[in-house]
Amino acid sequence: MTITIKDIAEAAGVSTMTVSRVLNNSKLVSDVTKNKIIKLMEEYNYQLNYSAKSLVLNKTFNIGVFFSSITNDTSSSFFAACVRGVANKLPLEYNLVIKQIHGLVIPAINPKRYDGIIIVSQKREDEDLIRQIHDLNRSIVVINRKTEITGVNNIYVDEIDGAKMATNALIGATNKKLLMLNGSKEIQSSQDRETGFWQAVDSAKLKRADIQVIYAKDFSFSSGYHTMQEFLVNNRCPDGVFAANDELALGALKSLSENHYDVPSKCKLIGFNNSEVSQFANPGLSTIDKPIMFMAELATTSLLEIIENNNFSTKTKILPTSFIKRATL
Amino acid sequence: MTITIKDIAEAAGVSTMTVSRVLNNSKLVSDVTKNKIIKLMEEYNYQLNYSAKSLVLNKTFNIGVFFSSITNDTSSSFFAACVRGVANKLPLEYNLVIKQIHGLVIPAINPKRYDGIIIVSQKREDEDLIRQIHDLNRSIVVINRKTEITGVNNIYVDEIDGAKMATNALIGATNKKLLMLNGSKEIQSSQDRETGFWQAVDSAKLKRADIQVIYAKDFSFSSGYHTMQEFLVNNRCPDGVFAANDELALGALKSLSENHYDVPSKCKLIGFNNSEVSQFANPGLSTIDKPIMFMAELATTSLLEIIENNNFSTKTKILPTSFIKRATL
Repeated sequence: MTITIKDIAEAAGVSTMTVSRVLNNSKLVSDVTKNKIIKLMEEYNYQLNYSAKSLVLNKTFNIGVFFSSITNDTSSSFFAACVRGVANKLPLEYNLVIKQIHGLVIPAINPKRYDGIIIVSQKREDEDLIRQIHDLNRSIVVINRKTEITGVNNIYVDEIDGAKMATNALIGATNKKLLMLNGSKEIQSSQDRETGFWQAVDSAKLKRADIQVIYAKDFSFSSGYHTMQEFLVNNRCPDGVFAANDELALGALKSLSENHYDVPSKCKLIGFNNSEVSQFANPGLSTIDKPIMFMAELATTSLLEIIENNNFSTKTKILPTSFIKRATL
Repeated sequence: MTITIKDIAEAAGVSTMTVSRVLNNSKLVSDVTKNKIIKLMEEYNYQLNYSAKSLVLNKTFNIGVFFSSITNDTSSSFFAACVRGVANKLPLEYNLVIKQIHGLVIPAINPKRYDGIIIVSQKREDEDLIRQIHDLNRSIVVINRKTEITGVNNIYVDEIDGAKMATNALIGATNKKLLMLNGSKEIQSSQDRETGFWQAVDSAKLKRADIQVIYAKDFSFSSGYHTMQEFLVNNRCPDGVFAANDELALGALKSLSENHYDVPSKCKLIGFNNSEVSQFANPGLSTIDKPIMFMAELATTSLLEIIENNNFSTKTKILPTSFIKRATL
């Protein structure tokens, strides 16, 4: 027989909420009650989510958090913010399982092994995998990228609008020669942020001839640095730079500084994401806040609603960005 | 009946290695063979680690990666490096399960739910939980901190020696008034790094009266900044600063810079960890390389040796650090 929280609660003469609080080591339970409950758990050999329970309930208690990649293309701050967001909202009985899915075939992913899955998608080429996963497991939420697969819950950030906001801030500070330092072309965010950039440029009726977009090979600090170094060999220093993320912006900042172009007096600079590194900059980096952890929290709440209440109604949620003014603009 | 990789290999007339390569989408398999194998998998309804297999083998296929904390006290770069290290070495059939254990009671952790566990320990107060986990599951490896629990595999970095190296580099550059900007006292690394600092100071026969140690409330950039700001209100600028990690060092750098103390001409500076952020500094931050990802990789290999070969012989491995010279020293 499987011992449940309810059995422990009855034996102890307390509510299941109290037992749950003890499991979470909550300060709301007195030491006396806590010790009594722990003793009962030991007596009954109670373990949260004992595997027999999984069989009875036909649940795995695994929640998959699938990333396109956890190595390249994924910054530590983005990765950590996503995992923290899920962990913040996930009840104790679930396992938070991390997986990198790009390049895997479906039998290796085995979507049925999870009660629910959050797919942190970064590339359009994930679409095929998303469809296959959804065919096998309807309890999924796709975050970070707009998916075209019908019937899939989807939460992402309005990157185009964020890029417009960044570009408008740049245009407000220096209505002249602008440069967009973009990341790798195959990432959806690069495409969206470039779309927003051009929309703002065109709205302000700037001459397209004064504007340049260059591409770094990925989203890293060193790519930002080297791409900017190369640019400055053959080009004049721009009046303002919109970098597609904060790491690229800081790489560009280092390059500008080494070339004796002062930021912000000679060149304005703005990044994207408001990731931890943006505050490390010297001067502090102006940027666009992308609510990554909040997005992951929402996805988790949404997924639990599907799993625990069998509420499969499809929702799409687009989160807004905001402008963070620091010293580079 | 459970379909295994071996059954698929036999049906396809290939080796199990080839099937395994297909699961990993390896480029070493021709498209013809790959498509044939995937078709067979679909035909046999093969899924990696189908739960029936878990029951037969009495395995969960879950590998726990337990952190003291995944929010406070844990930087994104440290967290990501640990997870990446495990992911790099973990075979596909295992689930990589992230859990924050500080403050949980054992029934909530349920150590039996994992084939093996890597505990990324940051605090001495984890010792009690480590002992309890080990009592229930012998397949564990503790990393990052030296544990006193006997019979536990343990991999950590020689932090005392690393701190000595950092301090000696500082003393070599400026044989005068030194400051150690330490992190939160309850973290083992803070204590070890301070031990190494004093050992180097005493070996060099510096006057202890010229030396100060101050504590930030945690290991964050903003704590480093604010602690340094407060220090500079009442004290002269030191000739050299050893910060207990790179984030603190960058916070101090910002504070020194705002107070018009040039780094490195007026004040030398060195951090610890060689985390991603150290290269973002402007000027580049000299630091001590702590091989975090390598430590996690070793732990995973070690854990698989326990799980798959039932090799429970206890090993302790202490990894060396190295000095990374950049521009601040």
